[in-house]
Amino acid sequence: MASPIASAALKARVQRPSLLKKLCRPEDLLHHFPNGAYVGWSGFTGVGYPKKLPTFLADHVEKNNLQGKLRYSLFVGASSGAETENRWAGLDMIERRSPHQVGKAIAKGINEGRIKFFDKHLSMFPVDLVYGFYTKDRPNRNIDVVVVEASEIKPDGSIVPGASVGATPELVQLADKIIIEVNTSIPSFDGLHDITMTDLPPRRKPYLIMGVEDRIGTTSIPIDPEKVVGLLESDYQDQTTPNTPADDASRAIANHLIEFFEHEVKHGRMPKSLLPLQSGIGNIANAVIGGLSESNFWNLKVWTEVIQDTFLDLFDSGRLDFATATSVRFSPDGFKRFYDNWERYHNKLLLRAQQVSNSPEIIRRLGVIGMNTPVEVDIYAHANSTNVMGSRMLNGLGGSADFLRSAKYSIMHTPSTRPSKTDPHGVSCIVPMCTHVDQTEHDLDVIVTEAGLADVRGMSPRERARTIIERCAHDAYKPILKGYFEKAEFECLRKGMGHEPHLLFNSFDMHKALVEEGSMQKVKGW
Amino acid sequence: MASPIASAALKARVQRPSLLKKLCRPEDLLHHFPNGAYVGWSGFTGVGYPKKLPTFLADHVEKNNLQGKLRYSLFVGASSGAETENRWAGLDMIERRSPHQVGKAIAKGINEGRIKFFDKHLSMFPVDLVYGFYTKDRPNRNIDVVVVEASEIKPDGSIVPGASVGATPELVQLADKIIIEVNTSIPSFDGLHDITMTDLPPRRKPYLIMGVEDRIGTTSIPIDPEKVVGLLESDYQDQTTPNTPADDASRAIANHLIEFFEHEVKHGRMPKSLLPLQSGIGNIANAVIGGLSESNFWNLKVWTEVIQDTFLDLFDSGRLDFATATSVRFSPDGFKRFYDNWERYHNKLLLRAQQVSNSPEIIRRLGVIGMNTPVEVDIYAHANSTNVMGSRMLNGLGGSADFLRSAKYSIMHTPSTRPSKTDPHGVSCIVPMCTHVDQTEHDLDVIVTEAGLADVRGMSPRERARTIIERCAHDAYKPILKGYFEKAEFECLRKGMGHEPHLLFNSFDMHKALVEEGSMQKVKGW
Repeated sequence: MASPIASAALKARVQRPSLLKKLCRPEDLLHHFPNGAYVGWSGFTGVGYPKKLPTFLADHVEKNNLQGKLRYSLFVGASSGAETENRWAGLDMIERRSPHQVGKAIAKGINEGRIKFFDKHLSMFPVDLVYGFYTKDRPNRNIDVVVVEASEIKPDGSIVPGASVGATPELVQLADKIIIEVNTSIPSFDGLHDITMTDLPPRRKPYLIMGVEDRIGTTSIPIDPEKVVGLLESDYQDQTTPNTPADDASRAIANHLIEFFEHEVKHGRMPKSLLPLQSGIGNIANAVIGGLSESNFWNLKVWTEVIQDTFLDLFDSGRLDFATATSVRFSPDGFKRFYDNWERYHNKLLLRAQQVSNSPEIIRRLGVIGMNTPVEVDIYAHANSTNVMGSRMLNGLGGSADFLRSAKYSIMHTPSTRPSKTDPHGVSCIVPMCTHVDQTEHDLDVIVTEAGLADVRGMSPRERARTIIERCAHDAYKPILKGYFEKAEFECLRKGMGHEPHLLFNSFDMHKALVEEGSMQKVKGW
Repeated sequence: MASPIASAALKARVQRPSLLKKLCRPEDLLHHFPNGAYVGWSGFTGVGYPKKLPTFLADHVEKNNLQGKLRYSLFVGASSGAETENRWAGLDMIERRSPHQVGKAIAKGINEGRIKFFDKHLSMFPVDLVYGFYTKDRPNRNIDVVVVEASEIKPDGSIVPGASVGATPELVQLADKIIIEVNTSIPSFDGLHDITMTDLPPRRKPYLIMGVEDRIGTTSIPIDPEKVVGLLESDYQDQTTPNTPADDASRAIANHLIEFFEHEVKHGRMPKSLLPLQSGIGNIANAVIGGLSESNFWNLKVWTEVIQDTFLDLFDSGRLDFATATSVRFSPDGFKRFYDNWERYHNKLLLRAQQVSNSPEIIRRLGVIGMNTPVEVDIYAHANSTNVMGSRMLNGLGGSADFLRSAKYSIMHTPSTRPSKTDPHGVSCIVPMCTHVDQTEHDLDVIVTEAGLADVRGMSPRERARTIIERCAHDAYKPILKGYFEKAEFECLRKGMGHEPHLLFNSFDMHKALVEEGSMQKVKGW
């Protein structure tokens, strides 16, 4: 079968002629994907992922009724596009997945036991990959084939990624074979990246980053040209969704936080321009960044994992000087705005490997303000970021613990309640004991809900419990949580085990009431 | 009252004449310690702590029946000597304590609610101190008075610590007043330390340490001479206890680990000389280091928190090239051996601030092998390092999470069971769910008991559970834990919430059986 002819658009992006010779059709690459293969993709938070080959393989499975017969171990820095990994999950094509995912079908596959999933700190996942920890039982000790999206290929064969770097540097280091998808539907992102590779101890070096704008690497990812088995042209953009708008509760949370920042500045514990901000995904994060756009803070900087639409507003408000992350995950409108105003933004942004964006070393050095949303927080300031009722996986740990462990300010923000099926306040996000712990009491400084802000720095557990219940719990749950704490305190102090008082065998009774009666409010007395 | 006359021994140690003029008696300093004062001491793991003034204050309280009337907030890098902090606790002199402690009276005070204690990652505690997080509600925003032990004072007034550095650099940075105890009963430790101070973000810099022997600081701690309100001569050594000897179980654990190291070297994931070792305190740690002294590993290096007697054996075996930590906590015999052979050891040792010895930045860069002992581990590889039955504080988190989060190899070693009052195997150290979580499933790579070693790298939770139960649980608990897991798996998968299966409302039933029937073996069926 003759090779396809390169389009003018593709030729303009591929400056390495020998790679153009590897241009092929997806079907030419099918034999690189036998059942059981270890597969890596570029991508992070649903941007910068390969599109043509994953979609082709899904079509292939669907057309030929191969569901459950072509199953892969899939490694991607974080989540990929729904039309790729979620479709794969729906077609039972995923045997194993790490370290993060988004999508109904993939969550279903994990929670019904068809997909072996493990979530790892996003800063560590790529390093453990290079250590060979995840491929230790494989004959080749490598990942069989890695598919990466590029927005340009340099004369030396190195690739300029698109909207994310993620774990691509480490995936290509560990790949036996590499397939490149050059996406001609997006502009070249040349100059927007700061790329570093991973060395093995005892030869690892410090990351010499002392400010969010510091560059320590190259603008493209080196690729061993002999590993490249095929080149494809990709012709559509990242399939992102619109942003979740802020609501009253999230705006109230944002106001509490901005007041707290003002307090810290006033007392000399933070510069007037604050410290580099990390902000997660979701409506609370959007409200916080939105709130800063109307605040009295100027010359702000961002050191985070994902840059979203609201950061464009913060740039446009003149308050944000520089932002760096491992991906820009804009909405479709946001991407249009970004591409249309490339000249305005491109000098104020830098995308790095997730190992660097989420590096505890750098987060601690810069004194980042880390903000995340949990499933639930308990009265002693542990947080559950991953497993509902201790068992049902949502998306994975992500970078929450990378940031919350090492940030100068470790902040968890959450609505005080969420609705259950029968009660608009059926779930309290403040509970006696988390059903799964991802962030420990040793990690969190501040808990915020729409009700208020609990600053628990330097507090003993019993002080923390009183403060969190008083400041953060919903009024409907205050007496319930207070009842739990006071009985636990009485019982445990009496027994000489009252450092962190629990009614251990009733600690999940609120969750039990939710399961059995439809609302945590229905918990029987303690 | 006339000042005391300096002994010849003291004069030989104090090279700053103006400080000699501040020589005084403990009673001259009493007025610096009003009720409610915030007090800092040097010291770490029971070495390098001040002796004269704390003992004098305890005598003063005892003689004058001031129990409960002179209470202090006490900040020390980690634990201090029993005759100081534990005696203070017994005399109800401690209002608040952080971040770690050892002693029956102090544990009792914490668990009966008289002492407000919080444990923080030992790498972070000094930084949070300098951030002003723990003194934010104080009028002076500082620690009122800090008492430090020195083994020598340099002409510039800087002090050479004794057997530990701990949080002393940050405590003196934050002190309003400083009292120096020069200990003339120990040799000068000049040259054994590598001292760095703490800067505030955005001005923090990388730690340019790329090997365990790298020096980045000074040999003494700078002191503002105007803050010094008194100088005392201290005349007895650190009151340490003998080491816990290895037993059969701990030797079995050590053998499993050494076999694992050999396996990793054989498969190219670790150099022949391994990677820098971190080892905790206790008989298992002693067995592991003892085992290495008879192993085929040479040119070993140690990057750890505390150096103990067994490391001297490892030096003497010719296998250890260099060791660095924040304290040398030898037994009385060990200290004698160390001082008698100063020339043999002093060039192979370096003591750093605990912020550096426990730095996630450096631990990750060097690829440390981290090994610690927990209270309990659960079937999904979470670990409890602090609170028995979720509530009773032992000693505190220490550096366990600093190392286990960032190490290349994160290893928890524990006997598979411990005795209860009525059953020699009444407590299983492998449980369905930890009653308190300090190390998460995202942090641990390897669990070891005398029964065997579970290498859970890259495993999904359900794979982890099967492996940990099979390899690590005691035979008496294997069917019990398997019964829990299998029922949880069945129930949760059926409900589409089976990523990490739990019988949430029965997850602490083994602990309940222990409380109610004296042994976890007596748990009723699931």
